[in-house]
Amino acid sequence: MIRPISVFDSGLGGLTVVRAIRKALPNETIVYFGDTARVPYGNKSADTVQEYSLEIADFLLSKNSKLLVIACNTASALAIDLLRDRLSIPVIGVIEPGVSTAVYTTVNGNVGVIGTISTINSKAYQSSLKKHKNIAKVVAQPCPLFVPLVEEGWINNKVAKLVSKEYLTPLNQKDIDTLILGCTHYPLLKTVIESSVNSGTKLVDSAEAVADDITKLLIEKDLSDRSNQSGKLDCYVSDFPARFESVARRFLGDSITNVTKIHF
Amino acid sequence: MIRPISVFDSGLGGLTVVRAIRKALPNETIVYFGDTARVPYGNKSADTVQEYSLEIADFLLSKNSKLLVIACNTASALAIDLLRDRLSIPVIGVIEPGVSTAVYTTVNGNVGVIGTISTINSKAYQSSLKKHKNIAKVVAQPCPLFVPLVEEGWINNKVAKLVSKEYLTPLNQKDIDTLILGCTHYPLLKTVIESSVNSGTKLVDSAEAVADDITKLLIEKDLSDRSNQSGKLDCYVSDFPARFESVARRFLGDSITNVTKIHF
Repeated sequence: MIRPISVFDSGLGGLTVVRAIRKALPNETIVYFGDTARVPYGNKSADTVQEYSLEIADFLLSKNSKLLVIACNTASALAIDLLRDRLSIPVIGVIEPGVSTAVYTTVNGNVGVIGTISTINSKAYQSSLKKHKNIAKVVAQPCPLFVPLVEEGWINNKVAKLVSKEYLTPLNQKDIDTLILGCTHYPLLKTVIESSVNSGTKLVDSAEAVADDITKLLIEKDLSDRSNQSGKLDCYVSDFPARFESVARRFLGDSITNVTKIHF
Repeated sequence: MIRPISVFDSGLGGLTVVRAIRKALPNETIVYFGDTARVPYGNKSADTVQEYSLEIADFLLSKNSKLLVIACNTASALAIDLLRDRLSIPVIGVIEPGVSTAVYTTVNGNVGVIGTISTINSKAYQSSLKKHKNIAKVVAQPCPLFVPLVEEGWINNKVAKLVSKEYLTPLNQKDIDTLILGCTHYPLLKTVIESSVNSGTKLVDSAEAVADDITKLLIEKDLSDRSNQSGKLDCYVSDFPARFESVARRFLGDSITNVTKIHF
């Protein structure tokens, strides 16, 4: 019986992580859950995010998952310890892989991180980065308008450029050479973010780092799917929001089929 | 026993309606529910919004309410008929009062309406306006970035002005003389909205229209509170989000006390 990799996010942004996993591991079957009825998590309390994460993990475990990926920065920041405690399968979040990549990338040791208010307030990135000896300074900046910009499809217009400048200009005086995109939506704003930061600043997109970590973990635990068939993608959502299809395609880079709405 | 006026919204925006009711009816006790764990409703499906609205109405009925106010445009658009069907107390939404005011205000019969994607897609404003003989044309425009702008506190900066111009410039070629602010957050953007539309365009803020309708209805049904004491305000939320206090104060124009978190 196929044991899928389960991935969840507060909404559809986590499909950028699914995209990276499919590219790295085309044989693996993936079950995705997007909590589209309750999105966004970024402005919810820790208690609420933990409760929702547990509920979703229970659902995904019922699919015989071999591995759980929290493709949501807010839930990774607030709920990963709890899920690791409660679950018998490995749990991978997006923060540790992003931090490892940043630590490996930075030359001057000054790293910036941008994310939702909850992610930044949780200090998950900041404290994880500071554990590494070669990190000299961490600069964190919440960018709450970036998610609605992406969902509006305004990823490279005048508004996107101005918002990006407002948020990122203060970072430019801090001499950072590496910037972690601490939200699954932000890679879609890469072009405007790149044009707002000092030239030469490296952007860290966690999705690829997560896919690398999963690849290693599957080998390590001998959990790889050995079939030669392409893996399936099954998607579950808690709601079909307005413009679902176009938003999903934007993140996945492919049209989304096999979507079921479920109710907790 | 005091019978309160119950008011609900997807989040805290409905506190602009509470503010107008308190001003018009200072003796009335108000129970407010903000569904802050599940905000926003603007990008959820009709089914989901109806289900949440019923759940909230059940809770508010347990407070012995004499009147239910849906201070949320999306829920008013999608759930008012259902709630009127199911509930034995009067239900007032924000759409009909806003439409009545617009119909009374317009001179040339051309009315614009702005709101969330769900509110605009529901066509609730459009079809309600078109029932009136003196309405010649209705122009509707979703403005999904307005809510996050208000919640970020960016209500009169360069970004707010640019976003407002992007959304409202197309309306300026349509010869409207009246614009309904079809979302409880939008009155906070009044200054930038006014500077983006043709001069002389009248903005309709539903909150005051709702307070007028409530005043009439309480007299009509003999439900007014006859005490000479100031009414209380009890608030319930489904979550305490980040920056709760500052956001609540922005909408209510007063600090918020007596807040209880409840769980469905």
